[in-house]
Amino acid sequence: MQKVNRRVVLKERPRYLLPTAPLFRMESTAVPEAGANQVLIRTLWLGMDPYLFSRVKQVSPQAKPVPLGGVMYGATVGRVEVSNRPDFAVGDLVSGLWGWQDYAVSDGSGISRIDGDIPKPSYLLGALGAAGFGAYLAVVDVLRVQAGETLTLGAALGGMGQIAGQIGKLKGARVVGVAGGKEKCRIAVEQLGFDACIDHKADDYAEQLAAAYPKGVDAFVVNTGGRMFDLALPHMNLRGRVAVCGLMENYAMTSLPSGPDRTFLLLNQMLLKRLEVRGSMVLDHLRSSRYDDFKREMKAWILGGQVKPLEHVTEGLENAPDALQGIFEGRNVGKSIVRVAA
Amino acid sequence: MQKVNRRVVLKERPRYLLPTAPLFRMESTAVPEAGANQVLIRTLWLGMDPYLFSRVKQVSPQAKPVPLGGVMYGATVGRVEVSNRPDFAVGDLVSGLWGWQDYAVSDGSGISRIDGDIPKPSYLLGALGAAGFGAYLAVVDVLRVQAGETLTLGAALGGMGQIAGQIGKLKGARVVGVAGGKEKCRIAVEQLGFDACIDHKADDYAEQLAAAYPKGVDAFVVNTGGRMFDLALPHMNLRGRVAVCGLMENYAMTSLPSGPDRTFLLLNQMLLKRLEVRGSMVLDHLRSSRYDDFKREMKAWILGGQVKPLEHVTEGLENAPDALQGIFEGRNVGKSIVRVAA
Repeated sequence: MQKVNRRVVLKERPRYLLPTAPLFRMESTAVPEAGANQVLIRTLWLGMDPYLFSRVKQVSPQAKPVPLGGVMYGATVGRVEVSNRPDFAVGDLVSGLWGWQDYAVSDGSGISRIDGDIPKPSYLLGALGAAGFGAYLAVVDVLRVQAGETLTLGAALGGMGQIAGQIGKLKGARVVGVAGGKEKCRIAVEQLGFDACIDHKADDYAEQLAAAYPKGVDAFVVNTGGRMFDLALPHMNLRGRVAVCGLMENYAMTSLPSGPDRTFLLLNQMLLKRLEVRGSMVLDHLRSSRYDDFKREMKAWILGGQVKPLEHVTEGLENAPDALQGIFEGRNVGKSIVRVAA
Repeated sequence: MQKVNRRVVLKERPRYLLPTAPLFRMESTAVPEAGANQVLIRTLWLGMDPYLFSRVKQVSPQAKPVPLGGVMYGATVGRVEVSNRPDFAVGDLVSGLWGWQDYAVSDGSGISRIDGDIPKPSYLLGALGAAGFGAYLAVVDVLRVQAGETLTLGAALGGMGQIAGQIGKLKGARVVGVAGGKEKCRIAVEQLGFDACIDHKADDYAEQLAAAYPKGVDAFVVNTGGRMFDLALPHMNLRGRVAVCGLMENYAMTSLPSGPDRTFLLLNQMLLKRLEVRGSMVLDHLRSSRYDDFKREMKAWILGGQVKPLEHVTEGLENAPDALQGIFEGRNVGKSIVRVAA
């Protein structure tokens, strides 16, 4: 065991900018001790999710922001090193939200033991975590994707996009993703089975995207917002469905785009095409039976090889701030996770 | 019987402007004769609906535009003057869509006999017509308004707004409307039973509207768009519902408003509040069982005095173009209809 507990704490808040590595600093404290009825957990993995941006901002309507000087919040996977509880044994793999630090103690609340038959415990941070559940809720519950329909989404290799697309394929849909770069697009098609993946860095991005929708778009996972939203929306079919799950591209804006104000055009598309548009957030459904359905179905899909989680690993706790910035810059080729310990 | 059939025909198309009276001209032709299996109808009433704007524009994704030189399209009520059909008798009152002219012949398709116990046949153009059905679909089916919730809408005395608000009251909701002028607002509250009606011409319109939503907004009939939409949306509650039924205020714009582009802010509201936003159009449901449900329920509500249709009558076929312009200028105090003959 290390002698110190390194922690990544929040140093300052962003001003509607990209979350950048300089917002954080490393500090070291004593490794906490597991008291009565507590366990000591060694952190193995951190999950990088776009929603973490809302936790570093001062005002978030969703959840308490991380206090300045506080340990950065985030999904975690670890191993029990000391247990003073009958329900956890040393060596148990657990998932939780104890944040960006080497060690944490827990009284058992907020941590869950990871099933022994899950191929990689880190999947709890992606396909079997918030990103995967968000994709499941969007594609299955909000969009109700049917065989023969066209499903589209951005960030095709990101935590949510890769799973949304693979569930779409399982449901028999034509799946069209968008990603940054030819290599990512190749992987989306060849490894994940997408029907098409369009490189948003290509000069003829708009034309390629339009050509990828020969029968229009029936279902749209809005996970990036921004230009992808603008380009795909006009292709929506009559009575199409749109799940608004995240607006990552917009979070990185320093100000609103210049005018004209196109709010009316969006409303008019909704009216003329009778679109159904719904905001969807994972945190509403963590206590619903759909969470159990998701865990059961997704585990079966992964074990059956129908869903192939794709991970992008950054080494070292000290590199977590840069990894978070990386997902907003599109540097990750797969769900971004950080390996803290072997 | 008159010797001529006066008709209002489309002279020119608007260029994304208000529909103005100069777009039309009057012409006279011979009164058509009812042939075998036909009826001759004398027009009594015309209904002025915002959607008619889409029929004078050159390009409409919804329906064929009225050809230049063609009789203006629109909902009509009339009386059978000659019948060569066994299913219609002279004197029968009928409703249909034969447009802005004194007389029309029909083979019986597209016209419906009006029930004898409907208090006024002109109600077929408002509360019992497209406006009323649109309000019913929005409040009952899309918004699923429940007792104790707050429902809001614009154009409180307009064809759709007045009915949407009264159905909201029937469902036990707090109903907050917006209208132009103190007199309209007084009528909405005193005659139609709205809980509040805010005058959008008042200097402190925004403040008054905010104060009218002490418990936020659960259900929103978007029938005007424009500034009312901008002001009411921030008051939506978590998991609120929005029915996009019409954007009358926007139709009157000559160009998009200046920037910044606030599309992202709208999407972000949908996400953070998990709004459900749906475009709703009457023409999708004219052959569904909901149309029969509507006709049965609305007739009972009107006969029972629970829904009080409010009409604004313009005299004379020749004044129909001005009456159409009037609904975009907010000159009507009630559902706008035109009396063509007694």
